Amino acid sequence: MPIITLLSDFGLRDQFAGAVKGVMLSLNPDLTLVDISHQIPPQDIFTGAFVLSQAYSYFPQGTIHFAVIDPGVGTSRKVLAAWAGGYFFVAPDNGILTYIMDAHEEFTAYEVTADHYFRKPVSATFHGRDIFAPIAAWISRKIELHQLGPVLKSPVRLKMPALKQVKDGLMQGWIIAVDQFGNLITNLKPADLPRSFKILAGQREVTNMRKTYGEGTPGEVFAVLGSTGYLEIVIRGGSAAATLNLKTGAPIGLVLL
Amino acid sequence: MPIITLLSDFGLRDQFAGAVKGVMLSLNPDLTLVDISHQIPPQDIFTGAFVLSQAYSYFPQGTIHFAVIDPGVGTSRKVLAAWAGGYFFVAPDNGILTYIMDAHEEFTAYEVTADHYFRKPVSATFHGRDIFAPIAAWISRKIELHQLGPVLKSPVRLKMPALKQVKDGLMQGWIIAVDQFGNLITNLKPADLPRSFKILAGQREVTNMRKTYGEGTPGEVFAVLGSTGYLEIVIRGGSAAATLNLKTGAPIGLVLL
Amino acid sequence: MPIITLLSDFGLRDQFAGAVKGVMLSLNPDLTLVDISHQIPPQDIFTGAFVLSQAYSYFPQGTIHFAVIDPGVGTSRKVLAAWAGGYFFVAPDNGILTYIMDAHEEFTAYEVTADHYFRKPVSATFHGRDIFAPIAAWISRKIELHQLGPVLKSPVRLKMPALKQVKDGLMQGWIIAVDQFGNLITNLKPADLPRSFKILAGQREVTNMRKTYGEGTPGEVFAVLGSTGYLEIVIRGGSAAATLNLKTGAPIGLVLL
Repeated sequence: MPIITLLSDFGLRDQFAGAVKGVMLSLNPDLTLVDISHQIPPQDIFTGAFVLSQAYSYFPQGTIHFAVIDPGVGTSRKVLAAWAGGYFFVAPDNGILTYIMDAHEEFTAYEVTADHYFRKPVSATFHGRDIFAPIAAWISRKIELHQLGPVLKSPVRLKMPALKQVKDGLMQGWIIAVDQFGNLITNLKPADLPRSFKILAGQREVTNMRKTYGEGTPGEVFAVLGSTGYLEIVIRGGSAAATLNLKTGAPIGLVLL
Repeated sequence: MPIITLLSDFGLRDQFAGAVKGVMLSLNPDLTLVDISHQIPPQDIFTGAFVLSQAYSYFPQGTIHFAVIDPGVGTSRKVLAAWAGGYFFVAPDNGILTYIMDAHEEFTAYEVTADHYFRKPVSATFHGRDIFAPIAAWISRKIELHQLGPVLKSPVRLKMPALKQVKDGLMQGWIIAVDQFGNLITNLKPADLPRSFKILAGQREVTNMRKTYGEGTPGEVFAVLGSTGYLEIVIRGGSAAATLNLKTGAPIGLVLL
Repeated sequence: MPIITLLSDFGLRDQFAGAVKGVMLSLNPDLTLVDISHQIPPQDIFTGAFVLSQAYSYFPQGTIHFAVIDPGVGTSRKVLAAWAGGYFFVAPDNGILTYIMDAHEEFTAYEVTADHYFRKPVSATFHGRDIFAPIAAWISRKIELHQLGPVLKSPVRLKMPALKQVKDGLMQGWIIAVDQFGNLITNLKPADLPRSFKILAGQREVTNMRKTYGEGTPGEVFAVLGSTGYLEIVIRGGSAAATLNLKTGAPIGLVLL
C-alpha cells in the first residue's frame, strides 16, 4: 500500500486535514496516510522545512511527502512535484524543500501545470485540498512526474546561513529551529566543533555539554547533541527559547577555547 | 477497505479517541480510520456540524462518518444512523447533521434501538465508545440501517437563521462558524451578493473584498470567498473574531450600495 | 494487518511521532497505526500509565502497544517488551505499565538487550525512534519476545496508594489522574462505596452523586461514575482540578454517613 505523509499548518481543529485526506482517499482508497504534523506555526516555512527534514527519511522508499505551508496560496507561486533520495515530494515552490535539496544532489523538481489533475473548481485559498492533495494521490497511482509539467531548474530555496568565521577563534552559527518545548536547535554539527569551546547565545555563555536533556541542574543552560544530529541549547524542564529570548534565525557565537 | 471518519470534542490528550478506535477495530480490523477533528470546542454542536459539513463530501462514497458531540449523553436524546448523498452518518440526534439534511433531500435517519449491537455495559457518560463506535463498525460490516431501529421522521435540527431582508437595501446575515484562526464564516454565498455592497460586522464596515487571506494591509478587516463556499470576514495574520468581538450566531448586515 | 498503538509525550507539532511511524512502517509496511495520545504532559508517567490503562483493552487481541514516556532516556533504565491479557507492550521500565501488571497476573516482561534490532546509530535522546519503534515493529513481524532478551522478574512499578482506613468511618483515597477537562479521577470504585457517604476533596465536601456530567447545577462540585470505572469529581462546564486546586496524587477523604 502506498504511503502519503502530511505536513502542514492546517491545525487540527478545523476541516482542513480531513478534507485533504478525503480527496486523497477518493482518488486512491488503498493509501496509508500518516500525519507528520499539522501544527507547524501558521505560514512558518522554516519550521516546516526543518520538521520535514527530520522525518521524511525514516519512511519506506517510495513514500510521498505532502508538505503544504503555503502563504503564497492564490498568488503566482509555483506548485512542485519532486523526487529525491527515493522519495516523492509535493509542495509549493517556496523553499520548504530546501533541506531535501541540500541533502540530495539528484533532487529533481517539476512544475505542476497539468491542471486536469486538479480538483475543480480550484478555490483561491485552499490549494492543499484542490491541487496538492490530488497531485499526491495521482503520484500514488503511479503517474510519472514528467506527466505533471516541465522540469523546474531553480526551485526557490530558503536562505540557510552557513557557519562562518567571524574572526580568529570565533565562528558565527544560527538557530535553525525551535521545537515545541523551546529547545534551540543550532546549525552546529559534531564535526564542526573544536575540542574545546563555548557557545554565546543571547546574553549567556553555554559551556556545559551533556548527553541528555535530563542531566542539567535547575536553571542551567547547556548543550545536547540532539536526535536531529545538531547541537541543541536547552534547559531542563524549561524553554531555552523563552529564557534566552531567542528564536529561529538568531545568530549564536562559537568560541574556540 | 471501508473508511470511518471521526469528528468529536474528545480532545487529543486522553484515552477517548483511542478507545473509540479500539472498539471499532475490534469489530472490523480492516477499517481505515481518518480523524476529521477531535478538537471541536467542548459541546459545540454548531461548530461540529459546520466542520463535518465541510469535510464529509470529499471522502469516497460509502464512507461512514462518526460525529459525536454529545452534551446530552446519558439523557433521553436519541441515537441516529443516517444515510444521505452516498454516505453513512452515526451521531446523536441533536442537530449535528443539520447541514447534511439541508444538502440532501433523500436524507434518511433511523433511531438506533437495537441495543444488542452496543458494547456492554454501556457507561452513562461515554456513548461514543459504547454505542456510536460499535454502530459505526457494524455498518462497516454491512448491516442494513433498518436493522438498527425504526425510521426517525423528524430528527432534531439546529436553527440556522436564513439571510433575510430587514429593510430596503439591508439584509441580515449571520456568522455560522469561527475557524481556529479566528476567521468569521458568514452565511453569505456569492449568489446572495449584489454587485456592490458593504458588510456591517461588529462596529466595523467591511468594504474590501479580496481574493486571498494574504492580500490585506496590516489591520485591515476584509472579506474573502473562502474554500468553504461562504464569504469570510478576516484580518491578515490576526483573528477577526477577537478584533470585532464576534462569535458564532452573531448577526451581520449586508448593505446594498 | 497487525495494529500498533502509540502513546507518548512527544506532542504533535514536531517530527517525533512522524519519525517513529516512519521507522515502524519501514520495517513493516502492512501496519495499522493508531494514536492513543501524544499529548501526555511531558514526562508524566502517572498520566501516561492511566491513559494507557483506559485504552489498551478495547483493541483487538494481538495489538502491540507502544508507550513511551521516557524521562530516563539515555540513562541505565531498561527497555521492556511485555505480554499480558493478549496484548504486547513496548515501554521503558519506569512504571508506565503498572496498571497492566495489576490487571493481569500472567504479565510477563522481557528486558530488551538484543541491540541488533535497534536502529543505528542509537541517539542519546530519542530511544522512541531508535529502540522502541523498531522493537514494536519487529514484534509485529512475529519475532518471539524471548528473542529480545531475558525475562525481567521485577519491573519497576509506580507507587499507587490503595484506599485505606484512617479511622472509624473515614477512608483515605487518592486522585489517580486528572483528565484534559480538569475532571478529578479518584481511585474509588463503586464496590468501595458505602450506601451513604460524602467525599472530602480540597476544602469541599462533595455530597451529590449524579449520573452524567451535564446534570449538575452551576458551580456545583459533584461526583460521577466515569466511563473509566472510577468515581470522578467534576464541575459542569468547568475544571474541578482548578476549582479545588487538586492534582494527581492528592489525597481525598471518604466519609461514611
